[in-house]
Formats: sequence, structure tokens, C-alpha cells
Amino acid sequence: MSHSGPVLRFEATATDASARAGSVLTSRGQFLTPCFMPVGTRAAVRTLSSVDLESLGVQVMLANTYHLMLRPGAEVIARAGGIHEFAGWNGHVLTDSGGYQVYSLNPTVDDSGATFRSTYDGSSHHLTPERAVQIQHLLGSDIQMVLDVCPPLPSEPGLVRAAVDRTAAWAARAKAAHQPALVGGHAQALFGIVQGGIDPCLRRESAERTLAIGFDGYGIGGLSVGESRDEMLPALAAAVEVLPTESPRYLMGVGDAIGIVEAIALGVDMFDCVLPTRLARHGTVLTSAGRLNLRNAGFASDTNPLDPACDCIVCARWSRAYLRHLLCVHEPTAPRLVTIHNLHWLLALVGRAREAILRGELDRLRAEVARTLKG
Amino acid sequence: MSHSGPVLRFEATATDASARAGSVLTSRGQFLTPCFMPVGTRAAVRTLSSVDLESLGVQVMLANTYHLMLRPGAEVIARAGGIHEFAGWNGHVLTDSGGYQVYSLNPTVDDSGATFRSTYDGSSHHLTPERAVQIQHLLGSDIQMVLDVCPPLPSEPGLVRAAVDRTAAWAARAKAAHQPALVGGHAQALFGIVQGGIDPCLRRESAERTLAIGFDGYGIGGLSVGESRDEMLPALAAAVEVLPTESPRYLMGVGDAIGIVEAIALGVDMFDCVLPTRLARHGTVLTSAGRLNLRNAGFASDTNPLDPACDCIVCARWSRAYLRHLLCVHEPTAPRLVTIHNLHWLLALVGRAREAILRGELDRLRAEVARTLKG
Repeated sequence: MSHSGPVLRFEATATDASARAGSVLTSRGQFLTPCFMPVGTRAAVRTLSSVDLESLGVQVMLANTYHLMLRPGAEVIARAGGIHEFAGWNGHVLTDSGGYQVYSLNPTVDDSGATFRSTYDGSSHHLTPERAVQIQHLLGSDIQMVLDVCPPLPSEPGLVRAAVDRTAAWAARAKAAHQPALVGGHAQALFGIVQGGIDPCLRRESAERTLAIGFDGYGIGGLSVGESRDEMLPALAAAVEVLPTESPRYLMGVGDAIGIVEAIALGVDMFDCVLPTRLARHGTVLTSAGRLNLRNAGFASDTNPLDPACDCIVCARWSRAYLRHLLCVHEPTAPRLVTIHNLHWLLALVGRAREAILRGELDRLRAEVARTLKG
Repeated sequence: MSHSGPVLRFEATATDASARAGSVLTSRGQFLTPCFMPVGTRAAVRTLSSVDLESLGVQVMLANTYHLMLRPGAEVIARAGGIHEFAGWNGHVLTDSGGYQVYSLNPTVDDSGATFRSTYDGSSHHLTPERAVQIQHLLGSDIQMVLDVCPPLPSEPGLVRAAVDRTAAWAARAKAAHQPALVGGHAQALFGIVQGGIDPCLRRESAERTLAIGFDGYGIGGLSVGESRDEMLPALAAAVEVLPTESPRYLMGVGDAIGIVEAIALGVDMFDCVLPTRLARHGTVLTSAGRLNLRNAGFASDTNPLDPACDCIVCARWSRAYLRHLLCVHEPTAPRLVTIHNLHWLLALVGRAREAILRGELDRLRAEVARTLKG
């Protein structure tokens, strides 16, 4: 089935300098920005279910094409009615292209695409821009990402330049292959991705070339991959300046509190990262006074909640002492409850940033976050 | 603080042959019987929180003294205000004596008690009937169990006889050491334990000797430890016949559906077992048509719920295909959701048994369960 008209509309409700508080409207519904998207690698955020995501007020779940194309397989999910039906999740889903994971597997890459071996069973797979589009179509996400080339940082300038060129070429092929066909009654948006390392000129060029192809929204990839925050932000700013105000901007893989708030100030609307959930599983708690290592013996009899300033269900009910105990004896309840807290905490921070933009007070929040948080 | 009057009252609302539907009233409140108590080994049912237990309608959580005395330590829990406060759980808590775990550690046992090494750090500990009472007092459970001697089956008759004798001697010491003191405003009940292997005469004798000491309720221990169901039930019946109708009867460690329903028919009121939760973590699903191994490839694209006849939140929302996928890729969401289903399923079965007793139709349920279930 074909689809006419834009499959996604972004509207900025308010701006505060470069920052925007807005909403993204898709055929599934609306989500508000700035927005943090928890990572449901294998169609579930680790330790959580879609019921938990609803309770947390999650608007968009990210899922990984690399993992899902191998297990259970995109066709299995398509037969189940798509990822929303499969995971019992009525919110939005954004899928990545699979590229990011594939590049960590030492793939053979040429102009056609990337050939890699499955970490599940060693089988060989060839991922192309077209195939990434087709797989994400089978998965049935609301927003799919083009296959890009993401070099680690630092990288030789030639490598970063080549990544920009190939990313642009692949983006054009992805755009040509993409049909915003109705998946289960819902149209599927496609986002391009800006590369260019930490070179503002290359970032600007990559943004222009991606924009020239034209997408429903724009990811900024290849950041938070080894560089410092001081190196990241100017490159991010250079890309954002080129991108149109009427499209959503998505900074891929950045999930630390300061990084998110600074990127929001530069005009970014969407974020994803495994950081809050991964930290949780290792017992690192996000709090309004900075990170806290729950394994520390000092918490053994601490009857305070994880963060006394937090209003999540975990902080309302359980103490540091109890959660530390469960963590230390490897009870799976511990990573789950800390995951819920960390996600609530980060979603609340992003919500506060949105409120601050609506009031024109984002700078005050930036200063507070920079003062009280370490990462 | 001292406490006068009975700390626990059992009332049989209805009987159906030997089976009873009743209620247990403690200073914390009431729970209805027959009752299945999920095992919260380390102050949490594996993968669940007290919020989940509430959603499931759990009335009593069991916790393991052996584990809690070592991690985080009974004093830590006492300082936190007791296990209810510690775990954020307002329902009832029953603690075992620690004996069952200790006996699996090849302890040195003499008349004074059992000396064993901690599985956490190798440290040496001496558990006596008095110490078990004191530790459970610190934990602050609503019902504590006496330290008993539980031989595996089959065992030499002399060993079973010696276990009966020592259990009786230790029960008297536990009773003497126990003060139903108010723990956080709540009086603590003490249950004796009947031993005697599969010998009905020994079971009868052990029940009489335990009864002569006098407890708030009576556990039947040392069953489901290697014998067949046909060996277990006559021994159980022999013990139950001696026990007073006005006290609750608790069959320790039996959690298979047929065993539970048969024991209810003999007049048992309370059950605990790790079986439904352990099976869940291994992907074995309890259903109205028998057990189902979720790992089977046949479920890969099965969009049915785990049990089409079940009304739990898991069956309402997710398919076998999704849960099998999560299980096969080791997502912790899978054991959690199957645990919720299995517990709901077993609690619902026990609830149906209660309803059947109230209607005088338990035999019909027994026949149905024997016909449709394999374990």
C-alpha cells in the first residue's frame, strides 16, 4: 500500500535560544520532545516489559535491527504482526539500521554493504542500505534509520571523510528503497544520519548532503564514540545548524545527563542510550546529587531511598539497604528495580528540560545540572 | 514486650470430607486457606518485588532464615525494622528455621544443634533450636518454624527414628526459647514440625509428640524429599489425622499441582515450594493442559498466550512466540514474566480448590486435575 503526504510532522511548541520543546506526530500518535528513548535491544528493555515502559511514561522504545534480524528473525516478527504486536507495546518504536552493532564485529565493508558473522551462531550475513530498509519494514517500527558508516574516534581524517561519502551514497539508496508503506495500518518514517567525526566542516557537509536527499528526520551519529564532551559539542552544533527547524533531530547513543542537557540546548530533540539501564545493572544509581555505587558497604544499613528527591515507585517503597542486599546476592529483582529508578530519573530530567524550555529557563537547568552532576 | 492470648487463630469456614477452607488470623491480619506461599529466599521472590506479590494476590511470602542470617544478616534486617519494612511488604511472612538448607551443606550435627559453613564466605556457624528462634525474632516474620531434623528419603529407619526424637527434643527447646513478643507491634507465631519419613506409625508418633508440646500451627516436613507421591500421601494422612482441627497445617516444600490438591483433600491448609518459580526460570510453563517447555522450536511463531485458559497479565498481553524469543536470548524479562504466570496459575488453582471446598465439590476438582495435569 502506498502512502501520501508526510508520515511524520514535527512542531516546535516553544523555543529557548536554540532549544525546542515540541511534538512529533506520526500515524501512530504523538510524542513530546525533548524525548529520551530507552533501548529495547531484543524487543524488550533489559529486565522490563511493556507494562513497565507504560508505567514509566516511555513514549518511544528503541530496538536493535542487528539483534532482531538474527533472533528471532525479522520474518518471525512480521508474522506476529510487527514489533508492537510482538512486544505488546502501543507506544512508538524506533529501529536502528543494524550498522552500529555490525561495525563492532570487524565486518568486510565495500560500496555494496557490510558482510559480518552473527554473534549468535557464526552465520554470515550481508547488510546493505536496501536490506536494512527491508528488515526494518518487516519489523514494523514507526521510525527507521538508514544504514550509515560510523567510524570510532579518534580516526584518521581520511577514514572520517570516506565514512561521510559512503553514508551519503547509502542514504540515497535507502531513500530510494524506502516506501513509507503502511505497516499494520501505520506509515513508517525514515531518518537520515549525519556523520563527520569531530570536524565541524565535515559535520556541516554531511548534514547538507543528508538534507539534500531529504528525510523525515535527522540522526546525528558517530558521536559519543571515544571523544570528549568538549570535542563532541562543537561537531554536534555544526550539524544542527544546518538541519531544518521543521524536522526532528536525534542525537544517537548519548545518555549522560550533562551531555543530554547540553545537546538539548543546541537544539536536539531525541536521544537514546543504554547508559541508564546498563549502569543500573551494575549497581550505579543516577541521583540528583550525582551517581552512587550501590555496592558500597556504607549503604548496608542505609534506610534512605536511592534518591530522596526522586518520586519513582522504587524510591517510594524500598531502601538503599534492601536494594544493595538484593544486588550483592545477585537477586534479579535488584537490576530491575534500579533500572526502573534510573530510567525514571533520566526521563524526569528530560521532562524538566522540556518544562524549562517552555518557561524560557533552560540555562538555569543547565547550570544546575553542571553544578550537581558529575556525568 | 509480652503478649497474652493466642497469637494466631485458625477458623474453618467450611469442610469437604477432610479438606477445609478457612482463615488464619494473626495480629497482622487475615489470610485465607488453602494458601500457597511463594518462596522469597533472600527477602524477594526471584525476579519479583513486593509490588508484584500484591498484584498476584499473594497473602504470605516465605523467606529463608539460612540465607538471611548470612546475607544481609538478621541484625541488619532488625535495624531496618524487620523483614516487612525491609522488603516493603505488608502481607504475611513465614520464615523457615534454616535447617533445611543447612542439612544440604553436610553439617556436623549433635544434640546441641548443627554446625555448618556458609556458602557465601566459608565462615563457620552453629545453629541451635534457640538460635533459630532468636534469628527469626530478629527477622520479624509473622510465623516462625522450629529447627527440625529432615533426613532425605529413602533413609535407614534408624535415621528417621533419630530425626523424630531429635526434632521433638529441639521443638521443646524452641518452644521454651520462643516469646511471642511483639515485633514492630506484631506478635510472632511458632509452628512445630512433624517428621517421620514415609512410615505412618512414626509420622503419627511425631505428630503426637509435637502436639504435646503445643504450637500455634503444625508443619509437616521431610516429605517431597525423594519419595513417590504414593509413598508421601499415606505418611501425610497419618500425621494430619493426629493434628488438631483448630490449628493450621502446613505441608512444607510441596508445590506440584496434583500433590497440592491431594494434600488439600487430606486437610492441609498451607503450602510453599520453589517449584513454580524455578520451573519458570527454566522455561517450563504451568498450564491447564499440563506443563509446556517454552524452549521448544514449535512455539517460535505461536501467537497464543502461555495458557489460553489463564487470566493473568502475561497471558493477556504476550504470546508464546515473544516469551520464547526473550527466553532463548537470555533476556531477564522472560523468567520474570513466566514466573508471574506460573505463580498466578498455581495461586488460581489453590483458589479454585478453596472454592470447591466451599461448594463441597473438591472431588470433582481432584479428578479434573488428575486427568489433565502430569505433575
